[in-house]
Amino acid sequence: MFNKDSLEFGLAPSSIRELFEYGKLRKKQIGEDNVFDFSIGNPIINPPKEFNDKLKELLDKDNIHSYTSAIGDEIARNSVVESIKNKYGVSLDKDLVFLICGSASGLSISIKSLSESDDDEFIVFSPYFPDYKVFVRNAGSKMIEVNTDEYMMPDLVDLDKKINEHTKAIIINSPNNPSGVVYDEKMIQSISQLLMNKEKKYNHPIYIISDEPYRELIYDNIKYPFLTKYYNNVIITYSLSKVLSLPGERIGYLIVSPNAEYKYELFNAFKGSARMLGYINAPSLFQHSLSFALNMSVNIDEYNENRNILYNSLKEIGYDCIYPSGAFYMLIKSPIADYDKFYDLAIKHEILIVPTKTFGKAGYFRIAYCVKKEQIINSIPQFKKLFKESKEC
Amino acid sequence: MFNKDSLEFGLAPSSIRELFEYGKLRKKQIGEDNVFDFSIGNPIINPPKEFNDKLKELLDKDNIHSYTSAIGDEIARNSVVESIKNKYGVSLDKDLVFLICGSASGLSISIKSLSESDDDEFIVFSPYFPDYKVFVRNAGSKMIEVNTDEYMMPDLVDLDKKINEHTKAIIINSPNNPSGVVYDEKMIQSISQLLMNKEKKYNHPIYIISDEPYRELIYDNIKYPFLTKYYNNVIITYSLSKVLSLPGERIGYLIVSPNAEYKYELFNAFKGSARMLGYINAPSLFQHSLSFALNMSVNIDEYNENRNILYNSLKEIGYDCIYPSGAFYMLIKSPIADYDKFYDLAIKHEILIVPTKTFGKAGYFRIAYCVKKEQIINSIPQFKKLFKESKEC
Repeated sequence: MFNKDSLEFGLAPSSIRELFEYGKLRKKQIGEDNVFDFSIGNPIINPPKEFNDKLKELLDKDNIHSYTSAIGDEIARNSVVESIKNKYGVSLDKDLVFLICGSASGLSISIKSLSESDDDEFIVFSPYFPDYKVFVRNAGSKMIEVNTDEYMMPDLVDLDKKINEHTKAIIINSPNNPSGVVYDEKMIQSISQLLMNKEKKYNHPIYIISDEPYRELIYDNIKYPFLTKYYNNVIITYSLSKVLSLPGERIGYLIVSPNAEYKYELFNAFKGSARMLGYINAPSLFQHSLSFALNMSVNIDEYNENRNILYNSLKEIGYDCIYPSGAFYMLIKSPIADYDKFYDLAIKHEILIVPTKTFGKAGYFRIAYCVKKEQIINSIPQFKKLFKESKEC
Repeated sequence: MFNKDSLEFGLAPSSIRELFEYGKLRKKQIGEDNVFDFSIGNPIINPPKEFNDKLKELLDKDNIHSYTSAIGDEIARNSVVESIKNKYGVSLDKDLVFLICGSASGLSISIKSLSESDDDEFIVFSPYFPDYKVFVRNAGSKMIEVNTDEYMMPDLVDLDKKINEHTKAIIINSPNNPSGVVYDEKMIQSISQLLMNKEKKYNHPIYIISDEPYRELIYDNIKYPFLTKYYNNVIITYSLSKVLSLPGERIGYLIVSPNAEYKYELFNAFKGSARMLGYINAPSLFQHSLSFALNMSVNIDEYNENRNILYNSLKEIGYDCIYPSGAFYMLIKSPIADYDKFYDLAIKHEILIVPTKTFGKAGYFRIAYCVKKEQIINSIPQFKKLFKESKEC
């Protein structure tokens, strides 16, 4: 009766969203403070007051809610170019900047644009953000999973094996959701070199789609290796959801590197894809906010503090944790082989953490620590009980 | 190299958008007042000041920019149900209300959800909004055009002929873009009766997708026949773009009638389609505004005044005009057989009006009169010169 894929993805909603909905219900039942909801990357830190104050000023202007060009207001696109120049010393082309409704739309648009036939392949590293699969399915292409090692870093030998003449792009997500790991400069150089060799071998571009909404959420003074410095065929999708705690507002940008092959043709395909998917323009009030929003950020010291408390406490309890250098996610390994059982026990202890099975690498759980510090502190005794009880099973 | 459809729709952007971009450029060249830009439905009337004031109050609240449920915040969905109850006396189900990024996304989501195979057909009445074709293509289905009569009303004989076992839905758009005509109760009853007979004949539901962003922009005291009163298998897609002059903000809703067959399954398909297309949730600040926004409207007396001046003046000059009872569009017929030539002449006279060729019915031009009254008044001598000159060709 209805679209098969739509029903599949509608009836089996993302495990994150499902847990998020359960959490909302459970809090109503037993009280907000008794549920340790680490399910979703919904940042608890409010945007800086200055941001909302400046939004209010915008609201006094004429035509602030009007249509913009489909690719976005020109002044706003210039602000993007300027901010990247200031932060990373990289020159972009405003006519290759597309303002979008958050990074998800950027992924859906770029994957569709690159998909010519159902032989086309998109490579992801497991564990990967589950909606990558959904966007690739929408485009009618195939998603190919490449392993990561015990530190959740790409397995380059496996990457080398999986690339073939059908590979259209690889999707990189650093800082990573769900693992929180950051690919350092050396890793980016290695991936780039490997891809350049493959491009020569197969004689066509292999794009990197860099999904980087967590780009500015990096700890331990690690420097972010901006992709266009290392590789030419780069597409960047970015959002202000995390850096400025605006996840509900759906504002971000999609960039084609000025060094990419067929760059203007690709950008035109973006325009057509956006139109087909039903996007008219990115929300206009937030487009106009970019002139100041791109220079703002939430105070990430709060996330850093959460991270340190969580990592150290869970290690001490005995959990096997992946050390997170960015974003606000941390993976812990199930202390027992039966990870479904561990999940049920966690729910029993009112701890809502996301199993990574749907991320393509079972046996781990994602903790989104973009929550109040008190929640972290209060959850530790529960995590301890959970660990003990799971070991007794 | 890239997706064929995306390139097609990206390289040949909508005639409306193209003209809109030309207009922006032209105004820079010769001054705002010297270009009579009737290209796009970008309402010139600002939203009521009270609306922006209340948005400012929202900005002082916590978590106003956070993720909501994918289908939208529950309080906001309740506001939709309440507003429809108050305005039309119709009871809806909040769990069949999906908050969306404007009506375009609602169309893209619902068409995709109803598309099972490439045999599926969606019926539109010509002239139709050109992006219908784009959304149907995205879903992999076929668009079937049904004629309208000289008053731009559906040709029911042709509709009867074009429905077959592959018909999944017909798309209704009243008040209509581009013609401004409104389907009265009798027309809706006739269409409903015809469809019910066809449903019996083919033994499956044929949905009406009612695209109604102009529902509250109706003149001459015509009463809007709310679709669910006449037919069961109804999907409504609505937006606040026009009624409240918020076209850039992308906020609206998609409804499945509580009387529709397979309603929950269809709604689940909506969830899956929205996810596949890259929508996360409708912009959250504007979701939260619905509790007050749904009770507000721009002052449509201004549009009515524009309409009357324009219609009467152009009739007097000699143009053949379709009488518009709603929206803020009016069609004029090309005074000469060579409508491409007429278009060129209009551009020469700095009059930007959209040819209806891409709307599936050539020979007419759409005038979007959601502009300043002065622009209408100042354009009349130009329209007069244009008429005269075209007749002299």
